Amino acid sequence: MSNSKKLNIVIIGYGTGGMTAAAYAKNTCRECNIIVFEKRPYPVYHPCALPDVIAGYLRPEDVIEHKPLTPGIKVQTSTEVKRIDLNNRRIQYHSVNDEGVVEYDKLILAMGSTPSAPGPLREALKIKDVYTLKTLEDAMTIRRKALSSKEAVVIGAGPIGIETAIALRELGLKVYLIEALSEVLPTALDKDIGSIVRRMLVEEDIEVLVNAPVSEVSRQGDKVLVKASDKQFLVDMVVLATGMKPNSKLAVEAGIKANEKGFIIVDEYLRTSDEDTYAVGDLIQTWDYITRKPTISMLATTAFHQGRIAGINSVGGNEKYPGTLSPFILKTGKIAAGSTGLTKTKAEQLGFKAYSARVLGWDKPHYMPNADKVYVKIVYDDKQRIIGGQVVCRECDVSKYVDIISTLIKLNANVETLIELETSYMPRLSDVYTPLYTAGEAILRRIKRKK
Amino acid sequence: MSNSKKLNIVIIGYGTGGMTAAAYAKNTCRECNIIVFEKRPYPVYHPCALPDVIAGYLRPEDVIEHKPLTPGIKVQTSTEVKRIDLNNRRIQYHSVNDEGVVEYDKLILAMGSTPSAPGPLREALKIKDVYTLKTLEDAMTIRRKALSSKEAVVIGAGPIGIETAIALRELGLKVYLIEALSEVLPTALDKDIGSIVRRMLVEEDIEVLVNAPVSEVSRQGDKVLVKASDKQFLVDMVVLATGMKPNSKLAVEAGIKANEKGFIIVDEYLRTSDEDTYAVGDLIQTWDYITRKPTISMLATTAFHQGRIAGINSVGGNEKYPGTLSPFILKTGKIAAGSTGLTKTKAEQLGFKAYSARVLGWDKPHYMPNADKVYVKIVYDDKQRIIGGQVVCRECDVSKYVDIISTLIKLNANVETLIELETSYMPRLSDVYTPLYTAGEAILRRIKRKK
Repeated sequence: MSNSKKLNIVIIGYGTGGMTAAAYAKNTCRECNIIVFEKRPYPVYHPCALPDVIAGYLRPEDVIEHKPLTPGIKVQTSTEVKRIDLNNRRIQYHSVNDEGVVEYDKLILAMGSTPSAPGPLREALKIKDVYTLKTLEDAMTIRRKALSSKEAVVIGAGPIGIETAIALRELGLKVYLIEALSEVLPTALDKDIGSIVRRMLVEEDIEVLVNAPVSEVSRQGDKVLVKASDKQFLVDMVVLATGMKPNSKLAVEAGIKANEKGFIIVDEYLRTSDEDTYAVGDLIQTWDYITRKPTISMLATTAFHQGRIAGINSVGGNEKYPGTLSPFILKTGKIAAGSTGLTKTKAEQLGFKAYSARVLGWDKPHYMPNADKVYVKIVYDDKQRIIGGQVVCRECDVSKYVDIISTLIKLNANVETLIELETSYMPRLSDVYTPLYTAGEAILRRIKRKK
Repeated sequence: MSNSKKLNIVIIGYGTGGMTAAAYAKNTCRECNIIVFEKRPYPVYHPCALPDVIAGYLRPEDVIEHKPLTPGIKVQTSTEVKRIDLNNRRIQYHSVNDEGVVEYDKLILAMGSTPSAPGPLREALKIKDVYTLKTLEDAMTIRRKALSSKEAVVIGAGPIGIETAIALRELGLKVYLIEALSEVLPTALDKDIGSIVRRMLVEEDIEVLVNAPVSEVSRQGDKVLVKASDKQFLVDMVVLATGMKPNSKLAVEAGIKANEKGFIIVDEYLRTSDEDTYAVGDLIQTWDYITRKPTISMLATTAFHQGRIAGINSVGGNEKYPGTLSPFILKTGKIAAGSTGLTKTKAEQLGFKAYSARVLGWDKPHYMPNADKVYVKIVYDDKQRIIGGQVVCRECDVSKYVDIISTLIKLNANVETLIELETSYMPRLSDVYTPLYTAGEAILRRIKRKK
């Protein structure tokens, strides 16, 4: 696969997608030049750890790194790409010190995403003490403000909204978490599982409002006023966690094809509409592993796997991206939740005959002091193939269950596999059988009854 | 599968195998009589938690239960079966109060195992302050003695020996752990991985001797003398953890076939040489899932899966036991280790062309305060099928990695699956990619080099 020609690979953005692409391009083609352009003044930061920076569990300096992760590549920090010229295969950049033009043989777009707000909230972003969370600077600003605040509203109960709400609560603030849709985590979880998470949030002393689209955010003296449903809140600060939009303007201006929401369109080699340009991560419209239908995944793990493919392909490889299960986990306060594959709601929307079983088990034997209850929901289709799973607990290792379910889906496993799994047992870590076994049993009983 | 005839099912022993068999027999045939005979004065105890009783992390009353786990079955405690009469399908029992005869339609043997000692050590069991660990009473006796002791020898560095050694160390004793074979955990781990665990034991202040068969255990005044290799130890107490033998005497006397070591022989329905008698758990010679060759797997998880099969089959079912991967995990002090499937050593002994890769990864991002290094070794065959895995870390959730590897083996996965896995990411629980991915990468690099 390695290419004897010394290729110039230019990568825009050094987030998870860009850094993985850079690593795999370099490791696949040692003699190639890999040049990354990154706006930040430091090459690496870890966005998923930002709620822990807000809470003070991590220091800002813990989540940045001052050296690229792959030796032999060049990461030009504090440098912004101003223009992509597809015809002449070159990009124009500028930094505080200089500007210039770099030619490339292959280009990899990894510019990531930026917080976005739906229609009526767009103006709110301009109001003092209204924040979004994406960069380390955002986290530091939110923490600084929170330390002198008493009350906060968080708008949007997706993973970032929930983690931010808990972090603010841990700093002692009274927190109102407001979601426009009918349940928390509305895309990752079915409503029955989401409602368990909501109850846990309430137990953590978060005031949660669902079915509550925000109608107004405005400045009132030294406070911010938020109106949602028929309620209003006068608070010290507001965090908007209403989603992300792709940083695709530069690419679209250059003539690269995007969908109606601005996500770059790629083929299974992660090549864009321009044959010398690849794109990865939050920036692209990807597809679901099970249905192969278009989906937006905005997960670091998705960017990682895509970065690998694009990096290898940019230097002559021929790897196909299989699509994503979008495995999601959340762990904050005494709440842990996760999901992978399709929810039942999503599966039905896509035309599947979908079935599910939900059980309540234990992560460890009930006599262990730290034993934790675990809710597991397994979604399966009419061929009894596992197509999704959701897990909620307080302190269990939710990643274990989610990862096993993902493995089962990837390997096309049938629901019977759930009871054939030989999981390991040791009271300090697990019970003789897992909640996944219990879910398998419930499903098989139901199937047998219907026969 | 349910049978309209009201069957009498007799089960001997209410350990994991017996209790699971009882539950599945009852749930499969509600009208059947399920009668269990159990020697103990209480129906349920949890043997895998005994090291935690020694250490004082659990109280004795935490690990016993006073009610059978399945409603509608009869568990006759404090009752010993004295004779099995296969021809007349009845058993003879006696208890403190009475004795009697019970007829059965099907019999399930689940008598478990008892600590055993090889040749020269057999006499040692009679010496004062020399203990074995199997029952709750054993754990209580060991703890009581340990609380007034300064030094202990543990003979045998399998899982029970290691857990006991750590528990005694936690109580403040100086502990010598002596293993006759060339490395700790000699059957569960390859030597390279075992040596990592040994170094961790040394860091936990356990003095470990390998290649040290014990030549003498004797009483010396109020101490016990242990001679091994060219060393000798005069200590307050000795724990023998040199293996278990099956409690099969009763069955063998009745005419049921066993192997040369006394393990009951069963077919894939877990039926013994007598067609009305099933056997499960520590008592039987089982077989390896991958090779289908005979193996001994004294694990609660194995007993659980076998109990399910035998319970269902005893009331008219027709389920086949697929064999075991013997997934093993250990978690004690700051040592966590596990394995599943075949070690490379074992695979080669069985005639496989076996290959392996060992990597060192992290369970969480390196910047997290509780990030832990994880050694992973994956064993694969010449068709690049995964046939085994071993994991060692200090505080990671070793069960997660072992369970994913077991799932991969069960579903016949190829080594490439390791890099296709979409594991979930959240800094508090996991990194963007897992050590299993890193192992997959190492394997694929090696395969590519060889092409």
